[in-house]
This record gives sequence, structure tokens and C-alpha cells, in this order.
Amino acid sequence: MNIALLSIGNELLSGDALNTNAAWIGRKVTELGCLVQRQITVPDDGPSIIDGLNRFIDSKPNYIIITGGLGPTDDDITRTTLFKFVGTDAVFDNEYWSVLLERFKRFGMDIPESNRNQALVPTSGEVIPNPVGSAQGFQFKVDGSILVALPGVPAEMRSMMEQTVIPMIAKSVKEPIIVRTLRTTGIPESALIERIADPIDSDHKCNIGYYPSLYGVDIRISSIRQDHVDGLSEELYSLLGFIIYGEGKDTIEHVIVHSAIEKHKTVSIAESCTGGLIGHRITEIPGSSTMFKGGLVVYSNAAKCMVLGVEQMCIDSYGAVSAETAEQMATNVMEKFGTDYGLSVSGIAGPGGGTDGKPVGLVYIGLADPSNTEVREYKFGTDRKRNKVRSSQAALDWLRVTLQND
Amino acid sequence: MNIALLSIGNELLSGDALNTNAAWIGRKVTELGCLVQRQITVPDDGPSIIDGLNRFIDSKPNYIIITGGLGPTDDDITRTTLFKFVGTDAVFDNEYWSVLLERFKRFGMDIPESNRNQALVPTSGEVIPNPVGSAQGFQFKVDGSILVALPGVPAEMRSMMEQTVIPMIAKSVKEPIIVRTLRTTGIPESALIERIADPIDSDHKCNIGYYPSLYGVDIRISSIRQDHVDGLSEELYSLLGFIIYGEGKDTIEHVIVHSAIEKHKTVSIAESCTGGLIGHRITEIPGSSTMFKGGLVVYSNAAKCMVLGVEQMCIDSYGAVSAETAEQMATNVMEKFGTDYGLSVSGIAGPGGGTDGKPVGLVYIGLADPSNTEVREYKFGTDRKRNKVRSSQAALDWLRVTLQND
Repeated sequence: MNIALLSIGNELLSGDALNTNAAWIGRKVTELGCLVQRQITVPDDGPSIIDGLNRFIDSKPNYIIITGGLGPTDDDITRTTLFKFVGTDAVFDNEYWSVLLERFKRFGMDIPESNRNQALVPTSGEVIPNPVGSAQGFQFKVDGSILVALPGVPAEMRSMMEQTVIPMIAKSVKEPIIVRTLRTTGIPESALIERIADPIDSDHKCNIGYYPSLYGVDIRISSIRQDHVDGLSEELYSLLGFIIYGEGKDTIEHVIVHSAIEKHKTVSIAESCTGGLIGHRITEIPGSSTMFKGGLVVYSNAAKCMVLGVEQMCIDSYGAVSAETAEQMATNVMEKFGTDYGLSVSGIAGPGGGTDGKPVGLVYIGLADPSNTEVREYKFGTDRKRNKVRSSQAALDWLRVTLQND
Repeated sequence: MNIALLSIGNELLSGDALNTNAAWIGRKVTELGCLVQRQITVPDDGPSIIDGLNRFIDSKPNYIIITGGLGPTDDDITRTTLFKFVGTDAVFDNEYWSVLLERFKRFGMDIPESNRNQALVPTSGEVIPNPVGSAQGFQFKVDGSILVALPGVPAEMRSMMEQTVIPMIAKSVKEPIIVRTLRTTGIPESALIERIADPIDSDHKCNIGYYPSLYGVDIRISSIRQDHVDGLSEELYSLLGFIIYGEGKDTIEHVIVHSAIEKHKTVSIAESCTGGLIGHRITEIPGSSTMFKGGLVVYSNAAKCMVLGVEQMCIDSYGAVSAETAEQMATNVMEKFGTDYGLSVSGIAGPGGGTDGKPVGLVYIGLADPSNTEVREYKFGTDRKRNKVRSSQAALDWLRVTLQND
């Protein structure tokens, strides 16, 4: 199954936006067992779009996936160009226009006239529904290729791919590739690979890829044989144990919310340098209100003392970024919210605030349960945003392992 | 000055790597006043590379910039293909080979034989030095275009662009393009365009693009004339006023932190459905500890009452998601943290928890100062993650406008 990707957008060519859509689609269709032959980015103008399409049609891919240029404004000329290219008439879809009217009304707004062209549909070709936005997609057959056009807004494109396009492509793939992605955290890529050297060097008959990020290293195992993928995965589980926190799209926060609900445990959080990021991550998960009772963001020393009850003497003697303060923060937040666990983070996110003894990137994480409070020290580096992410990941991972062992 | 970009690499097509090189080069040459006509990604094979180049040559760009495939390993066939394409012989550069030998020796390693092809240089064409790696780049003239080939490793590519290629292109640019991006929020793209229809439809001689996201709509104005760009920008400012929160890379949180510091104001936040996201966003900005004192994440009703002091009767009578509760949350958090402003958010993020009277997406935002507390109602839709982002953006934007008017 050959795929060609056409990305439309001046903002992609000028580097104002990264082409994350092409990478996302590339990954999804590769996982299905397809081959992406070519990807072209063209500006938002008719002749360039036609030129890109003509070039693809020549090489006869099974699917041409087009993203971008289906919004309501006048810089979006994809729709007209596409209808002309495939030679279809357009009709105004009164039913869909009513849906749009209703949607705008729900938000308390009058629908602008410029949205009318989003209700234009082709007479020969199919509409791809958009579950999260107003721009519908289209699907045509041209010279043996199936041509799919989707909006460029990532959330809309992804949702339409997942709901309609991926299932359609999957049906036509003869030998689907089986993929398992084991997600690890808290261990660098090189150390991880050393740890699993034996099975990796054996004749496991799988393809393996390593994908490091701030959140950890994902190990992607693929083959056309399920038993080969499962065999190698089991060997990695036996060597890595709790270093693997999940598979596929699992996040640490997802695992935490589900373990805590299953074990009837509740959690509260006191954050300093992470500023609310940990609470934000946990509350991304539907159902988190069952186990997450709340938290305190104590960004100033005064707030640490007055709102959270950390002893002024503790801050004076050891500093706001210290094991002692992190310990009191964890214990106090647990008591204040009446939860089973209290998690705390205090650190120096940077770029300012570091000293010789306490450099930027020094972070203390505390974890309290009613019988005990422990503190761990980390050193993360000098970049503020990366420090916040890494601190949140380390704190959540500790809570995750604790809940799984509970 | 027209530019075409050819990216070589299977990993880009399969989505295993994001094409950050194309975006980086696009941005750099756009800043110089060049126009990127086209970007193509092809696999690591000779025929695909030739095919991509032929296509570019036809449209006669001033520069063709190729990235990827100049490393030492056998999946890098760019060099051979390129020499064949331009019709040049290759000679072995003994001097550069000595440099490589020396460099490997310094790291205590024997140089692998596979590195020998990195010392192959063209007889007609120039070498582009690599200050940070072993793969040299090349430069050729073909049919009136200048063809530049660089390695795909981002640090090497960037360093070679900055040292050699960008200065060369800059010299040949006659009319640099001036760009201003006005960032707006709180108004949908179609309504925004209606509001600015008059100046947009006038003969302003600029290019305009609209870039919507969950955070708002960016308006990008460009021209080769600074006075044209500034003239149109001023007209948009006079029509949009506070709807424009910043320019270029400004974020709302950036504007808030800097206004608050300038006006010596402090802020605290009580979050329910956003779970900490607002505190997280403010604390992404270095220096935010001067104006942000902290916040409370009160995810349960009990926490709202016990930790934040919302009256139980208020929640019983009006509900946790109500104007009355949001008002008490804003007032109480301001008092608890002793700040000039208190911001609060209470809503139903979804997917569960909605009722007929209070659907998923209903959000109340409160803003307190010592003299007054106001509350606004919003309806955002059914997606949990989007609701959190939109709620945080609406809350921060209200605070931003209030601080700017303070």
C-alpha cells in the first residue's frame, strides 16, 4: 500500500509552523504496514496544489492524503481547487449548514457568512465527517488512487484520520504490521539498551526502534508476526520490570489515575517549581476527580508557610529548595486534603535563582503516606521548561510505582 | 529570491523523525526575504533523489537546498547521486582524510573504513565546511540554480547554514520581506475577518494569512515595504484594540507576567476544572515568581470548602459549577494569598458530569480585586483537553486585559 502526502500551507514553507501532520500521518500509516513514497509541501495557491497532485497521480500511489486549507477564510482555496481537479460540481448542503448554525448558536454567536463555503459538498465524491470542528473532509477516486482531503488543524485532522481514514486504509492492507510500543521512563537510552542487550542481539525477527523524549524512552517493536512481537516484549518485561510504565498511548498520569481508582486511593499535590503542571497532567485524564482531591501551588515562601503550614524555621534553616521543605510540603498537603498520599515538588526551575550550592535544576520530590514521608533529590539541568516537565515526570513516576506496589 | 527544499530520509516519511530542518531553513530564509516555493521529502534512494531534483530544476529556483544523506553509512547515497546528477568527477581529498584521521585519534578511536567516502570531493563544485561534524557539504551551479547539499544532523546543518549558506543568500537578496504577526484571542476566525473587512479589502499591498489554533487566531502581514506592513497593522490595531494581545512570539502568559511586574501587581489562582494548567502556564515565564504567589487546585467539593473556604451552602444551593462558587473562589484565593488579584475557574471539563441544565463545557471564570469580584460564563464544547486549554486561555486573557487597563 503506497501513500503520498500533500501538505498545503505557506506557514509550513516559511517555517512558522512545523509539519507535525506529515509526521503523525507517516507514523500511523507505517504502523499499518504502508509505505510513504513522497511528501510535498506547497503554498496555499491553486496552481501549486494542482502541480503537487499531478505529480502524485503519475506515480499511482494507492492513497493521496492532503492536509490543510479547508477553513472558512479566503486564504483557504483547497476546496475549490480540489473540486476542479477531480471535475466535480459542488452543491450547498442545507442540512450541514443547519448543523453549523446550531453549533454557533450553542456558543452564543451568529454564524458569519464566510462559513457558508464549509457547507459546499461535491456531487461525485464522499464527505469525511469532522467530529471536532466545522471543516468537513472529502474523498475521491482519481486514476486508481484514492484522494483524501482533510483540514490542517491537527486535532481535527487526527480525529478524522482515526475515525474514518485509518480504518479504511487498514481494511485494504494485506499483511498488517503488528506493533507494540513499550514505554519506559527514568533511564537514559544508552543504559536502557545495555540492560536489554541480550534479547536485542538475539534472533528475535522483529524491527526495533528507540524514541527518546523528555518523558522517557519508547521501545517500538514491530513485525508481521504477533508471536514474534509478543515473545520479544515478554523478554523485555522480564528484564525491565517497573521501568516499563505502559504501552502504546498510555501515559504515566493515565496509569496513576486507573491504579488509584482501582485501589481506592486518593492523592493531593503541593507544587512549587512545577507551578501546577502535575495537577494539570493528572486532570487530563477523564475520571481523575475520583482520586485527585486537589493541590496547592505554593510559589512564594510566604505561601509555603501561611497556606501550606511549612515551618518558617525550616525554610530559614534549610531553604525553600531542600529535602526538609519538600518533606513538610508532602506531609502537610496530604493532611490538609485528607488524602492517602501527598506528593510534593520544590526546585529551582531557572534560568535565575541558582547558587553554587544549589544550582538551577536541583529538585526535591517528597512522597507522603500516613506512616512515612520520603524525599528524593534530582538534578535536571538548566532549561526552565524542560526542568518542569522532567520534575513532573519523576514525581508522577514515583507515585505510579508506589500505587502499583500498594 | 526563490528557494526549494529537498529533504532526504526514510525516517521523515515514516514519521519516526519530525522534519525540523525544513522548518528551520524555511524560517531563516523567509527572514532574509526569500520565498520558499516548495518542499519535498524523498526516501534515501538514488532515483527518488534525482526525481526530486529534476522537478525543482524545472521551476528554476535561485537556490535548491538539500538536507540529509551525507553521513558515512551505506544508507547515505546522496553524495554519489548528486555527483552523477551534476556530472562531476570525484577525487579523494587526502588533506581532509588526514583531518578526519586526526579527529578520530583525538577521541581515541580508529577511523572506520566507511568514513573514507566523506573525503570524496567534486572536481567541479565547491566544498562547504562542517565546523561540528565529519560530513562536508557541497555547492554546485545547475541551469541557473545554485544547489547546496548539507548533512541532515540538525546541529551540523544549522552550523553550516549559519557560517556559509545564509551569508551567501543574504548577499543576493535585494528586497527583504517584512513580517508582522498580530496575535488575537477570544474571537473566531470568521468573526475576526468580518470585523476587519474594510482595511483587508482595501488596496493595502500586503500579503495576509490567518492561523487559527485553540489559543486564538494569528494574523500574519507581510510585504517588502515596512510602511505598508505598519500601515495595515495600525488599522487593524484601531479596529481590534485589546483583541490583539501581542505580536510575533508573545504569549498571553508572557504579556501578563510583564504587565504585572511593571505595575507591581500580584496574582493568585483557584483552579477547579483546569487542574493546575493556568499556574503551569504562568510559571513557564522566567521571572513569574515576582508576581505569581501561588494557587489552589480544588478538584473536590470538600477541598473547595475546607481548603479554600467556599461556603457549603453556596455549593449546595448553586452547585460547584456556578457563578456564585466561582465568585467565592476568586475572592477567597485573593485573600488567602494576600494578592492584588484573584482568578478562579470552575467548570465541567467532561466527558462525564454534564446535565441538561449544566452541559459539559460550561465554565465560570471569576476575577477578584479588593473592590469587586466579577464572573463570566462560557460554553466551550465537549472535548476535555480542549476545554481545559480554552478555559485557561479565556481566564488568562481576562486577567491580561485587566492588568493592561490597571
